[in-house]
Amino acid sequence: MIDLALRPLDTAAMDAARARQGQLVKPPGSLGRLEELAIWLAGATGDARPTVNARVVVAAADHGVSGVSAYPREVTAQMLATFLAGGGAVSVLARETGAELVCVDAGVDADTSALDVVRTGLSPSGDLTTQDALTERDVTTAIDTGRDLAAQAAQDGITVLVGGEMGIGNTTPATCLACWLTGGAPEELAGPGTGLDPEGVKHKADVIARALALHRPSDPLEALSTIGGGEIAVLTGLALGAGEHGLAYICDGLIATAAAAIAVAIAPDLRPRLLAGHRSPEPAHTRLLEHLQLEPVLELQMRLGEASGAVAALAILRLAAATHDGMLTFAEAGVSG
Amino acid sequence: MIDLALRPLDTAAMDAARARQGQLVKPPGSLGRLEELAIWLAGATGDARPTVNARVVVAAADHGVSGVSAYPREVTAQMLATFLAGGGAVSVLARETGAELVCVDAGVDADTSALDVVRTGLSPSGDLTTQDALTERDVTTAIDTGRDLAAQAAQDGITVLVGGEMGIGNTTPATCLACWLTGGAPEELAGPGTGLDPEGVKHKADVIARALALHRPSDPLEALSTIGGGEIAVLTGLALGAGEHGLAYICDGLIATAAAAIAVAIAPDLRPRLLAGHRSPEPAHTRLLEHLQLEPVLELQMRLGEASGAVAALAILRLAAATHDGMLTFAEAGVSG
Repeated sequence: MIDLALRPLDTAAMDAARARQGQLVKPPGSLGRLEELAIWLAGATGDARPTVNARVVVAAADHGVSGVSAYPREVTAQMLATFLAGGGAVSVLARETGAELVCVDAGVDADTSALDVVRTGLSPSGDLTTQDALTERDVTTAIDTGRDLAAQAAQDGITVLVGGEMGIGNTTPATCLACWLTGGAPEELAGPGTGLDPEGVKHKADVIARALALHRPSDPLEALSTIGGGEIAVLTGLALGAGEHGLAYICDGLIATAAAAIAVAIAPDLRPRLLAGHRSPEPAHTRLLEHLQLEPVLELQMRLGEASGAVAALAILRLAAATHDGMLTFAEAGVSG
Repeated sequence: MIDLALRPLDTAAMDAARARQGQLVKPPGSLGRLEELAIWLAGATGDARPTVNARVVVAAADHGVSGVSAYPREVTAQMLATFLAGGGAVSVLARETGAELVCVDAGVDADTSALDVVRTGLSPSGDLTTQDALTERDVTTAIDTGRDLAAQAAQDGITVLVGGEMGIGNTTPATCLACWLTGGAPEELAGPGTGLDPEGVKHKADVIARALALHRPSDPLEALSTIGGGEIAVLTGLALGAGEHGLAYICDGLIATAAAAIAVAIAPDLRPRLLAGHRSPEPAHTRLLEHLQLEPVLELQMRLGEASGAVAALAILRLAAATHDGMLTFAEAGVSG
């Protein structure tokens, strides 16, 4: 296993934040989830009046498994270039919410040397219906990349990390991982992803069942190597790194949440540091949220990935932090309590 | 009744926006509600690539009905001053979402001459358990104020209006209106507001039942005068004005949604122009949302009023408009569709 020293949430900062919420000029609890988010952020960052300095990490990879997506494999690299050019959904959402965007080549099947990406040297994953997706060494490399990105973020003054992904076909490994983690059946958890028809979903469920029957992993690292993927393993490392370095972490949809759930399987103490940004319509995502006991901030039927749902939730987290920090207390405002 | 010329949603702008959404570099529909919001905003503003220029109007008033709130009446004026000083929840939320804030004295029981508010000359409402809340003339004045504010907003280049309120005790008239509009029973629709205990809620339900039995209004304007309130009538006018001047309108919680529902009762064609910002835990709010067939954007257990939930939803609407306008198309990005 990995040698990890996770920071717990800072309960003193949470107590101070909770006390402040009780003094702000509003009926106690009337800002609902915004109050809870402010208190959680205080715990995750160790700051009773926390600031949101956010960085979005989008890890991209290709996958050996075929016939499970409505889009051709070349789209992964094309989208990576689009993100960096500022024209993808995540590019716009990150700009709009004042977050930095970092992209990672976690095994894209194209020459990305002209792109400003973090490099891992990973190749696309193998076809998990016939072989391991990644070598053990690939898994270590990917997790270390994610952890290093979190360490760098902490050094740069980032307080909130958001993990997202791009990878044609990657709802298949993510749903494999969800089945393995939760005991769910492939025919229950397989969904349309970016747009499969019912026959396509049935085929995907078969593929997932075959992969699970072939590999039967015995621990989370083995699960990443046999039925995972490069971008998933990077996001697992990123979530673990958030725990090591005292950053808040927002999970996106199915793939990013599967990665975070693997991180929790490796290090259960990580869980309170995770925020579920949104609920996607993929059945495996809801199962993973239940498994992690996380209540999503948003439910907007988003199913794009790219961290898009998590960055939308970041907009709400910003409002939570802003009201927490910027509102007057009853005493300051001279309002009868 | 009122002489109104409401603009319908611009279906040509909506068609153009829908076509654009189909070309943006993402699987069709994968941004979920964000796509629907962008198309709706196009229809409401008549602009296929709409911009969010938002103004928040908070109308404040006091109420003759007593014993229905956890807070004393003097808090209304104190909070109005706090909003203008920048320290209330709505002040912070408006700042954070780049919206202007305008406050209206719609019958506050205090000298507000030192405050930078829009004036109506209205007095606090009468006790609706024994008399009419407002005169017919008060209702006209308040509605005209709201309509004038919408006209001014349109002149100033505003595209999105957000209505909110402040008024100790005002969940009582709002719940009266919800009962009258939906046929709901007071004991089902009365809720804790800003913090009543179960006994307080029961008393409030009795108050509402008495007011309804006393007045039995026969049309929406009579409802506003008998069981309404100054801030509610201003918000009814604001929503109507949004319809007259081609602005998008975001409803907040119970009180603001009751005002908007009265506006729809006056002018049913207004409905498609309304966006439900959020769902509050007040039972009457859910009943009104069902009545209006509106699906809220957020469900964050917010129950403060002040437009707070609507302004939180404005943050999401901004993301919808930004992705709609800022993302590249498949062709522009050179991505295989």
